[in-house]
Amino acid sequence: VRAFTDDLSVLDSQIVKMGGLAEALLGDAFDALASSDGQLARDVVRRDVLIDEIESDVEERVYAIIARRQPMAVDLRQIIAALQISNELERVGDLSKNIAKRTQDILGKDLDPRLLTGLRNMTTGALTQLHEVMDAYADRDATAALRVWRDDDTLDATYNSVFADLIAHMTHDAPDVGLYTHLMFGAKNIERVGDHTTNIAENVFFLVTGNRLESDRPKRNCVTIPR
Amino acid sequence: VRAFTDDLSVLDSQIVKMGGLAEALLGDAFDALASSDGQLARDVVRRDVLIDEIESDVEERVYAIIARRQPMAVDLRQIIAALQISNELERVGDLSKNIAKRTQDILGKDLDPRLLTGLRNMTTGALTQLHEVMDAYADRDATAALRVWRDDDTLDATYNSVFADLIAHMTHDAPDVGLYTHLMFGAKNIERVGDHTTNIAENVFFLVTGNRLESDRPKRNCVTIPR
Repeated sequence: VRAFTDDLSVLDSQIVKMGGLAEALLGDAFDALASSDGQLARDVVRRDVLIDEIESDVEERVYAIIARRQPMAVDLRQIIAALQISNELERVGDLSKNIAKRTQDILGKDLDPRLLTGLRNMTTGALTQLHEVMDAYADRDATAALRVWRDDDTLDATYNSVFADLIAHMTHDAPDVGLYTHLMFGAKNIERVGDHTTNIAENVFFLVTGNRLESDRPKRNCVTIPR
Repeated sequence: VRAFTDDLSVLDSQIVKMGGLAEALLGDAFDALASSDGQLARDVVRRDVLIDEIESDVEERVYAIIARRQPMAVDLRQIIAALQISNELERVGDLSKNIAKRTQDILGKDLDPRLLTGLRNMTTGALTQLHEVMDAYADRDATAALRVWRDDDTLDATYNSVFADLIAHMTHDAPDVGLYTHLMFGAKNIERVGDHTTNIAENVFFLVTGNRLESDRPKRNCVTIPR
């Protein structure tokens, strides 16, 4: 039994480490964009590999633990949750890497301060949510997970306003359509981090309670373009 | 042992069914876009729920089978692969639903035939790959999975050319930036179906061989904007 507890706690610490890395990558990806820092952008791309490595390690451990320990009930839920959460965090890493690659393509371009503020608000919102859901995971706190799950709306609202700005820029600044396209996909990536965070919240809720959250959150009906 | 084989074959048939649904949704989402068919678009949105339901069912079965049967080695790989593949297919359903929702926002707009041809080529390419990987799954054919995994480049190349077209349209047709934005994200969604297909190919390969494919496929260095 002792060895099984050890197995689970290693799995746990790998997930927590992955969460920390994912947060750092998203934060740095935005900083690289905001300060047009090519070196930091390259660094984000490089560090994404670390997340992929932990994901592989988690998957190997999950197979080994199930085969060796025949876990049931909450133990099994912990193990499957680790697998699924590591998958979500790997995608957060990918999205951050993608922002960093786009940053490398638009280095030195002047960005409208209002747009940058919008993107910063999105990033801060996404990071807060991600941090809170990883805390909920570490604390096995279903109530906190539920709170994160309900709060994704705020990020969506910021995304909608950034998007409206970007459409306006594109419409009036034809030569820079390429730049704004990168920013659009960048904004979309941050919004998708919010979706992965919501998925993690569902995993944490199930892990703790054994009950599923409804898969469709109530979505605020949002204006026009973004989907 | 008989009951265990039954468990696995139900899991299998659920995955195959999900694959068929995902293909149908993507195909119909494109048809709705191409023929400006609002009813078909609504139908795609509605049917995506069926995929979500099968995903939940698969997850429940996976928990039950592991807890009851203590599977090991290839049996365990089959069960975990089913869980992971159902997750990828659920996302293909989401992406198709997203295309259908965007279609509802641009109903009746005239689309440049050349753009439509590009999007149709992407859809056909994505559907072929998805169909082949689901065949590889059904046949437990690692070679076929590897072939799908290597072929994602073709879809990426079509995506790049569609994207260049869209950027040109946006640059010269400012009032319709909103329309082209929807098409850009639509094209990106189809490209992402390709990524999920590649992930499924990795799952099938591991399920059959017990070995991992390298996680970074060799990517053709592509032109400018798309990432």
